[in-house]
Amino acid sequence: MKLSKLLVLTISSISLVVAGNLIETAKESGLKPIPSSQSELLKLIDNSKNPITKNKIELGKKLYFDPRLSKSGLISCNTCHNLALGGDDGIPSATGHKWTSNPHHLNSPTVYNSVFFSSQFWDGRSPHLEDQAQGPIQADPEMAAPKKLVVQRVTSIPEYIESFKEAYGDEKITFEKIADTIATFERILITPSKFDKFLEGDKNALNKNEKEGLKTFIDKGCATCHNDIALGGTMQPFPVVGKYKYSNVGDFKGDANSMVKVPTLRNITETAPYFHNGTVWSLAEVVKIMGETQLGVKISNIDTNKIITFLKTLEGEKPKITYPVLPKSTDKTPKPDMN
Amino acid sequence: MKLSKLLVLTISSISLVVAGNLIETAKESGLKPIPSSQSELLKLIDNSKNPITKNKIELGKKLYFDPRLSKSGLISCNTCHNLALGGDDGIPSATGHKWTSNPHHLNSPTVYNSVFFSSQFWDGRSPHLEDQAQGPIQADPEMAAPKKLVVQRVTSIPEYIESFKEAYGDEKITFEKIADTIATFERILITPSKFDKFLEGDKNALNKNEKEGLKTFIDKGCATCHNDIALGGTMQPFPVVGKYKYSNVGDFKGDANSMVKVPTLRNITETAPYFHNGTVWSLAEVVKIMGETQLGVKISNIDTNKIITFLKTLEGEKPKITYPVLPKSTDKTPKPDMN
Repeated sequence: MKLSKLLVLTISSISLVVAGNLIETAKESGLKPIPSSQSELLKLIDNSKNPITKNKIELGKKLYFDPRLSKSGLISCNTCHNLALGGDDGIPSATGHKWTSNPHHLNSPTVYNSVFFSSQFWDGRSPHLEDQAQGPIQADPEMAAPKKLVVQRVTSIPEYIESFKEAYGDEKITFEKIADTIATFERILITPSKFDKFLEGDKNALNKNEKEGLKTFIDKGCATCHNDIALGGTMQPFPVVGKYKYSNVGDFKGDANSMVKVPTLRNITETAPYFHNGTVWSLAEVVKIMGETQLGVKISNIDTNKIITFLKTLEGEKPKITYPVLPKSTDKTPKPDMN
Repeated sequence: MKLSKLLVLTISSISLVVAGNLIETAKESGLKPIPSSQSELLKLIDNSKNPITKNKIELGKKLYFDPRLSKSGLISCNTCHNLALGGDDGIPSATGHKWTSNPHHLNSPTVYNSVFFSSQFWDGRSPHLEDQAQGPIQADPEMAAPKKLVVQRVTSIPEYIESFKEAYGDEKITFEKIADTIATFERILITPSKFDKFLEGDKNALNKNEKEGLKTFIDKGCATCHNDIALGGTMQPFPVVGKYKYSNVGDFKGDANSMVKVPTLRNITETAPYFHNGTVWSLAEVVKIMGETQLGVKISNIDTNKIITFLKTLEGEKPKITYPVLPKSTDKTPKPDMN
């Protein structure tokens, strides 16, 4: 065998071993793939109290896109959690009814992969999507619609009644059931990427630079908080080291224990601006700030770029969504109220 | 032949003749079908100066749904011309940037079938969709984005540059070209219904009541203004008879000659509230008001119901639209401005 060929084989083997080790290291660091097996995935995303069905997904999709769930009739779930824009709105502070900005200057988090979060909202006050979905619909600066109005709007539309009957076997429509149905749709908003292929054993799914980026990500300690399937989604102390200096906008201080929900890193390159208050636009800046404030380390430009190279591998394939044609309002549908 | 069978045949023949006559009458009244022939349709909807291509449609769809074309980054064409809601917003007065209502209290018209209009906007000031699309993007109470900002936003995104290159053969992006591309997408937003099948000769496409409704519609004179393919879309005097009594909200007085664009009746059952100022929600009320004010006749409850039965036949099949995944912003993308 020629030396050059031998060398290639040897390097290739080393590379395989290294990649193999990296997969192990990543898993030991708490990183987990979105399973490619549909049955395994379903186990992870399903809700035994509100099982996923095709009918619920289709109805939930309609409700998710229906602005008539808001007081004004102009704002839907998709306004702030826009499935075309990485699952959020791309503006610093969530802005809703009457153009009101979130009173704590909180940034809309992405809905994609939120099913994997251990709790919902920046302060983690909600245990799951079924509960979470009830919040923004009612919140004054968001959709501003009282429960009763939402139920009246939906039940005024015969096609919705029929769809609830098909989805649940009975036609009783409650606010909670509306939120449950939206949550069912949200549960399937999952975006697998080449990182998942890699974690599942495809050593070539990431290239050399991407692997180096992942290694740096782990070595620096990022996976301490950004772990599990979502690379985020749990409550963690914030800030760990130093001051809250990147948070001079808004009054959010986390939950009762100053814990803050860790944002998912999936599709993070698509969901600027960053942090709970949406104050930083540059992902490089974010990586450095996180190093200083959460890990107590200074991350160099070179390492920052490596980490970003890895983060790009988390850009996932979005579910293909047919834009719904919503059932029409009737004479009984409560009118929009812009005030 | 048994008498009963003979009777059925005779009645059936009479019914055919009547339907045949009705098709002729409808055509003589100026009503035209959306052609089922794709080549005939293309001749009607294409723009020789900006020919429809698949690439332009796909890019135009992205731009249509992209809220980054607005100053705030929160309002897209689809916000007010929502393809899920009959092509408009379902609220009385168009509301945009900073929650500002249209200063003349004008209602957002549907985008569906607007390609068939002889002019655009309520005062008909725009000759075609390419020109129209430039308006709301810039208008302060709508998307409020200066031309320069729109071009900067789009050109800051490499995937958009690539798409323009694919669509036009060169990568020069101007505000006018952005509007042209959106218009191309809008040109295909056409909703054929059973009424078109009927006009094209399928005598059974409408049932007895629907035919009676069509006949009443024509007999009462509605087709005088609501004619051609869109059953609307031309400029007409308004009001013809009586006072402007259904227009006590807003200061809109039509064009220089007090002419007002006739709204299309296609999907009219899905696009309440009605009139240029969106003040009337009941279609029955609208039919009666139009009788009095435009035709000088009192339309009875029975005839109103007949006409509405016909109007329901204009609910068309909406084009199936895959919700786009938009290319991500970059560090160069001008930031949202909520003010």
